[in-house]
Amino acid sequence: MRERAQRTVEDLQDTLCEALERLDGEGVFRQTLWERPGGGGGRTRVLEEGGLFEKAGVNVSTVHGQLPEALADKLEGDATEFWATGVSLVLHPRNPHVPTAHANFRYIERGDTGWFGGGADLTPWILYEDDVRHFHEVLGEACDRHDPAFYPRFKAWCDEYFYLEHREEARGVGGLFFDYLKPDARHDLDSLYAWWSDVGRAFLPAYQPIVERRRDTKWTEAQRRWQLQRRGRYVEFNLVYDRGTLFGLKTKGRIESILMSMPPLVRWDYDVQPEPGTPEARLIEILREPRDWR
Amino acid sequence: MRERAQRTVEDLQDTLCEALERLDGEGVFRQTLWERPGGGGGRTRVLEEGGLFEKAGVNVSTVHGQLPEALADKLEGDATEFWATGVSLVLHPRNPHVPTAHANFRYIERGDTGWFGGGADLTPWILYEDDVRHFHEVLGEACDRHDPAFYPRFKAWCDEYFYLEHREEARGVGGLFFDYLKPDARHDLDSLYAWWSDVGRAFLPAYQPIVERRRDTKWTEAQRRWQLQRRGRYVEFNLVYDRGTLFGLKTKGRIESILMSMPPLVRWDYDVQPEPGTPEARLIEILREPRDWR
Repeated sequence: MRERAQRTVEDLQDTLCEALERLDGEGVFRQTLWERPGGGGGRTRVLEEGGLFEKAGVNVSTVHGQLPEALADKLEGDATEFWATGVSLVLHPRNPHVPTAHANFRYIERGDTGWFGGGADLTPWILYEDDVRHFHEVLGEACDRHDPAFYPRFKAWCDEYFYLEHREEARGVGGLFFDYLKPDARHDLDSLYAWWSDVGRAFLPAYQPIVERRRDTKWTEAQRRWQLQRRGRYVEFNLVYDRGTLFGLKTKGRIESILMSMPPLVRWDYDVQPEPGTPEARLIEILREPRDWR
Repeated sequence: MRERAQRTVEDLQDTLCEALERLDGEGVFRQTLWERPGGGGGRTRVLEEGGLFEKAGVNVSTVHGQLPEALADKLEGDATEFWATGVSLVLHPRNPHVPTAHANFRYIERGDTGWFGGGADLTPWILYEDDVRHFHEVLGEACDRHDPAFYPRFKAWCDEYFYLEHREEARGVGGLFFDYLKPDARHDLDSLYAWWSDVGRAFLPAYQPIVERRRDTKWTEAQRRWQLQRRGRYVEFNLVYDRGTLFGLKTKGRIESILMSMPPLVRWDYDVQPEPGTPEARLIEILREPRDWR
């Protein structure tokens, strides 16, 4: 499974980078290869100041060795050896009409136990409900092919995970989130793998049509400012709540690879409240009360 | 002591806001009064897009009641009642030659035990060693008048506190930091109060001359970009490490008052490394190895 999972995340990185460069039209991914002192390493690819993407990162890492102490309490199990492979991507378009997207697909083993984790989620700044429905539909179909219980379960988990307690808001309009998916009576490791890699391949058809629909929409200075302010919430989530980010920072992972997720330009203005009845206010309502999208 | 401490922080807020508006020349502080559901409240004052300050916040809060659960484990003592008053300020000048400054002065009681906490620290983007020496000298003198052991102790504590473990860098060039200062054999509560309020009054003479020296220095686009990138580190510190911020977020304090500390505009670019030998590289060296400034 290690080999298959690693090949899957590496192929996904290649496919995505190629497709995203084509979509961008101008930017190219710059690659950094790095090694982890305790074992393994990764390839970080970042595109900055492209035609469409203000910043896009697609990273792969495959690491192994003795479980760092900070991690030992946080992962299920009690073996001290681990092995992990994963791909992680964050896309920050410049145009505030095009939503930001994030996805992560990982396979982890601790001792003899292996599990899948990951997900994909969408963060619009200006709400187009059709876009949200499309994103959920494509990811949902990829799940349904394997188990009709998957989409509802992982959609709800996503709403719960990407939540800023202090703002009483979700980070975005959700998608899928899952972790610790181990073989059980219904699914062996092979069938979990088949589903997990299918969901990975579904990211692009879930996101690309949204980009194509919105990329030529003109934006105002006020919409751009709103996007920068809302990106502040994205930063707040990643630095205060996101388990992967905090885990990486506290275990001295490769900091620049971890923080490629940060938006390129961000504002914090004091006490911004959208006018009631505006699309901005409507977005906040939905972030405060996650909806069904299928 | 409650009354004296509260009057001191409120007077400090008034004096500072008046002086900062004069210094700014254009901006005015906008005030929000707020009440805390469990008891007490505060007055938040924020100046945005001024002539000198891109954003400046000077907040007072005086709160009391039953200790929130999240706080009960984190503060010394075991009584369940608390009372606290404090002033907190963060100044973000637009000109990257003018350093960002932060200060906080608080008096807290848990049950029958009262203590002082706080400090003041400087975060330059472009290093002028004279400025750093001046800042430390003025705060140091305010301490020396009360106890010659104070400055060295609180200077070291400041370097230790404002440290980004994951970046292996201090947030800035330090100043003073102190907490849990209770009466002991050398200082009763009155003499601690006298020192604490002196240090509060020393903030303005420590900072204002630096502003006056640097405010007319022209900056380049590259210097402005560097400032925005370095402000990213300021955000990382506040959201990942700062006890006050995290405590406020996790106990549902007034979020907009807590996050007035965030810089107005921030960049995260991938893997920025200053050219060796430049002033930017020199700043990083000092942040990696805090120095003596007196």
